[in-house]
Amino acid sequence: MAERHDAVEVIRAKRDGGRLSDSQIDWVVDAYTRGLVAEEQMSALAMAILLRGMDRLEIVRWTSAMIASGERMDFSGLSRPTADKHSTGGVGDKITLPLAPLVAACGVAVPQLSGRGLGHTGGTLDKLEAIPGWRAELSNPELMAQLEDVGAVICAAGAGLAPADKKLYALRDVTGTVEAIPLIASSIMSKKIAEGTGALVLDVKVGSGAFMTSLEDARELARTMVDLGTDAGVRTTALLTDMGTPLGRCAGNGLEVAESVEVLAGGGPPDVVELTLALAGEMLAGAGVTGVDPAEKLADGSAMDTWRAMIAAQGGDPDAALPKARETEVLTAPRAGVLTRLDAMAVGLAGWRLGAGRARREDPVQPAAGVEWHARPGERVSAGQPLFTLHTDEPARFERALAALDGGWEIGDSHTPAPLVLDRII
Amino acid sequence: MAERHDAVEVIRAKRDGGRLSDSQIDWVVDAYTRGLVAEEQMSALAMAILLRGMDRLEIVRWTSAMIASGERMDFSGLSRPTADKHSTGGVGDKITLPLAPLVAACGVAVPQLSGRGLGHTGGTLDKLEAIPGWRAELSNPELMAQLEDVGAVICAAGAGLAPADKKLYALRDVTGTVEAIPLIASSIMSKKIAEGTGALVLDVKVGSGAFMTSLEDARELARTMVDLGTDAGVRTTALLTDMGTPLGRCAGNGLEVAESVEVLAGGGPPDVVELTLALAGEMLAGAGVTGVDPAEKLADGSAMDTWRAMIAAQGGDPDAALPKARETEVLTAPRAGVLTRLDAMAVGLAGWRLGAGRARREDPVQPAAGVEWHARPGERVSAGQPLFTLHTDEPARFERALAALDGGWEIGDSHTPAPLVLDRII
Repeated sequence: MAERHDAVEVIRAKRDGGRLSDSQIDWVVDAYTRGLVAEEQMSALAMAILLRGMDRLEIVRWTSAMIASGERMDFSGLSRPTADKHSTGGVGDKITLPLAPLVAACGVAVPQLSGRGLGHTGGTLDKLEAIPGWRAELSNPELMAQLEDVGAVICAAGAGLAPADKKLYALRDVTGTVEAIPLIASSIMSKKIAEGTGALVLDVKVGSGAFMTSLEDARELARTMVDLGTDAGVRTTALLTDMGTPLGRCAGNGLEVAESVEVLAGGGPPDVVELTLALAGEMLAGAGVTGVDPAEKLADGSAMDTWRAMIAAQGGDPDAALPKARETEVLTAPRAGVLTRLDAMAVGLAGWRLGAGRARREDPVQPAAGVEWHARPGERVSAGQPLFTLHTDEPARFERALAALDGGWEIGDSHTPAPLVLDRII
Repeated sequence: MAERHDAVEVIRAKRDGGRLSDSQIDWVVDAYTRGLVAEEQMSALAMAILLRGMDRLEIVRWTSAMIASGERMDFSGLSRPTADKHSTGGVGDKITLPLAPLVAACGVAVPQLSGRGLGHTGGTLDKLEAIPGWRAELSNPELMAQLEDVGAVICAAGAGLAPADKKLYALRDVTGTVEAIPLIASSIMSKKIAEGTGALVLDVKVGSGAFMTSLEDARELARTMVDLGTDAGVRTTALLTDMGTPLGRCAGNGLEVAESVEVLAGGGPPDVVELTLALAGEMLAGAGVTGVDPAEKLADGSAMDTWRAMIAAQGGDPDAALPKARETEVLTAPRAGVLTRLDAMAVGLAGWRLGAGRARREDPVQPAAGVEWHARPGERVSAGQPLFTLHTDEPARFERALAALDGGWEIGDSHTPAPLVLDRII
C-alpha cells in the first residue's frame, strides 16, 4: 500500500532536480492510473522528467510501478524457453516477420506482442493484416496454445499489460514529452517484463529514420533498457543498428510481407537476412539454446513451415495473393553511377504519404501502399533505370510522396556502405 | 490574426531551449484561452518555461498576448492621474489599506483591483470584508464614478481582464509551475497593464514569509516586471522589501483593518508607516505629483477622511465595530531579553491555521481570526509578558497554530533589526 503523497509535491521534487522516492513513484503512477492525478499534472511531471532526468534506481522503480498497474503473464508452463524482440522502429523494418518463426523453428517460443504504427515507421500488426484473413487479436488461452503448438505468435498486446503505460504514452504523444529516455525505456520494458518473456533482444535504431538520431542517445537508451531487463530477471541484450538507410528493398505493409517471405524462402535482401540472423543469435543465446544454426533453418525450409503454421493459426491464408495497389509510379535514375545515399526518413515519409502509415491512431492504412527502391547504397545504376516504384490506391498521393523523396537520394561515383550492426550492449 | 501552429511544436521548441516566436506565443495563448490547446499541453509548456526560461522579448509578447485575451480599461477620462500598487504578498501586509486612501488624498486616483488570499498570506479583499456591509464587487461604471468622486477604490478584479491569466494561474497552482519568473511577471503585469493605470509601484517581498526567499530571485522578478511595465508605457518602479519578519503587529483580516485605521489616525507600527510612506512616494512620483508630503496627509486627517469615504462608497460602515474572535490564547515570554527573531512564515502559518486564510479557493475565512505579536525584533520583553495573542472562533485550532509558532521566534540579549526596504528598481 503506497504512502499518501500529493501531485504538486512530487512534481516539484523532480522539477527542482531531486530524485523521486520509491514511495513517491509508486503513489504517482498508481494515482495517475486511477485518475486521482490529473492529466495536466502528469504532463508537467513528464516534462520535468524529460528535462531533469532520472537515475537508474528511479527508472527501475518507475518501471515496476507501471508493471504493477496491470496483469503479468506467465510462460513458465510452456515446454520450451521464451525469447522476444523489440525494435524501437525503423523504415522497412519487417524483421519481426521472418524472425519470430525462425527462432521458433530453432526450439524457442516467441511471444511477440506488437503494436500498430504511427507516423513514418510501420507497425508489425499493420503489415500482417495485409494477409487475407489474418487476425491480430488473441485471447490469453489462444496465445498460450499457439505458443505451445506452433512456437511463435505475433499478436496485439492485450489491454491488461501495464495500463499506466498506455495512458501515459497517449499523454506524452500530445504534450511534447515523448523524447525522454527514462520514459521511453520504462514504457518499452514495463510491457516486455509484464509479458513474462525469459529472454529479450532490443534492436535500437540509430539514424535519420529512427527515433534516436545520435549514437550517444541510442546507446544510453539501450544501456538503460538492458539494465532494466537484467534487474527484472530477463536475459536482455541490445544491438544498435543503422537506420540512416532503410532496411531491405521496400517499405509498406503488403510489400514487406512479400519480402519477409523471400527471406523465409532462403533469399531476400542481404541486410534483412543479416539482421534477422544477428537478432536470432541473441535470442537463442538468451534462451540458452546452443548448437542450432538459424541460417540452416532458413535454408532447409523449417522456418518457412513455422511461418505458414503461425499465419494459418491466426486465420490467415499463407498462400493467398497479397493485395496489389491500383496505381504505381516509377522514378528513374537521371544518370549512371553508384547510389551513394538513400535516406530512411525520406523513404519513410514517402511511404506514409502514399497511405502505408497513419497520422492519427484511428486512421486506416492501405495494405498495398508503399515504396520499393531498386538500388541500395553501394549498388550501380544505369541512366534511365527505375530507382523507385511508388504504390498507392490513390494517385493524388504521388505528388507529395515524390516531394518527400526529393533530396533523399544521391548518385555518385563510388560508395562503401557503413556496417549495419553498430554496437552490442549486454 | 495569429498564424496556425501546433501545441506540440510550441512545447518542443521551448523544451529544447529555443525561443518562442511572436506568432507561436500569440497562437498558444489565444488557443489555450479558447480551449483549443488542452490543459495538459499548457502544463507541459509551463514546466518547460519554468526550466528553460524566456528572454525579455518573449516575456513582453507573452504578457501582450494575455492582455489581448480580454478587455482593457481606460482611466484617461478621469480628472487626475492614476497610480496603483502591487505586492507579491507577505504576512501582515495590510499596506494597501492605508496606502490607497493616502495617495488619493494627495491628488492621485488609485484603482486597486485586488484578489483574495490563498495559503499563508492574506488577501486584501478578505481583510476589507471584515468591515460590516463592505462589498468587493463593483461594476465598471461604479468603479469609474468612485475613482472620480473619492479617488480610491479597492475592489475585486472583474473577470474580463486577462482571462488567459485566470485560466493559466489555476493550472499552475495544481501542476507545480507557479515558481516561474516569466509566468509570475506576466501574470501580474498583464492584469496591471490591462487595468490601464498610468503609474505602478511593485512591492516585491523577500524572505521566509514571501514567495521569493532569495534576494537574487526577487531582484530578477522586480527587474522583469519593471521592464514589462515600462515597455507598456506604465511608469513602473519596484521596492524590494524584507519579509523575513512579518509587517506591523498583527496578521488576520479584522485585526489588520484595525491596525490600518491606527496608521490612518497618525499612529500605528513604525514599519507599516515607513513602508506606506515609501510606496506612496513612488506612486506620487510616478503620477507626476510633486510638492505634496504624504506624511502630512496622515497627520492632518485627510487620508482618514478618504478612507471613510472609500469604505462608505462600497457599503461599509467605517464606524462599525470590527468582529471579535470568540476565543483567544496567550503565549508568554519564558524569560526576559530582547526578541531576536520573529519568523514571517511561522506567523503566517499560525494565522492561517487559526482560520484567517483558506486552503482552497472556495473556503470561507474567519474575519476575526489571526495572530497578534506583542514584541517585534529588537524590542525588550520581560519574563511572563504576553508574546503572542491568538484569535479564533474555533478553539480546536489553537494546538496546530501554536505548533506553527514553535521555533519561529527567539529571545536573546541584543538585536539590531535589518532595514525594511532592501533595494529600489527603476
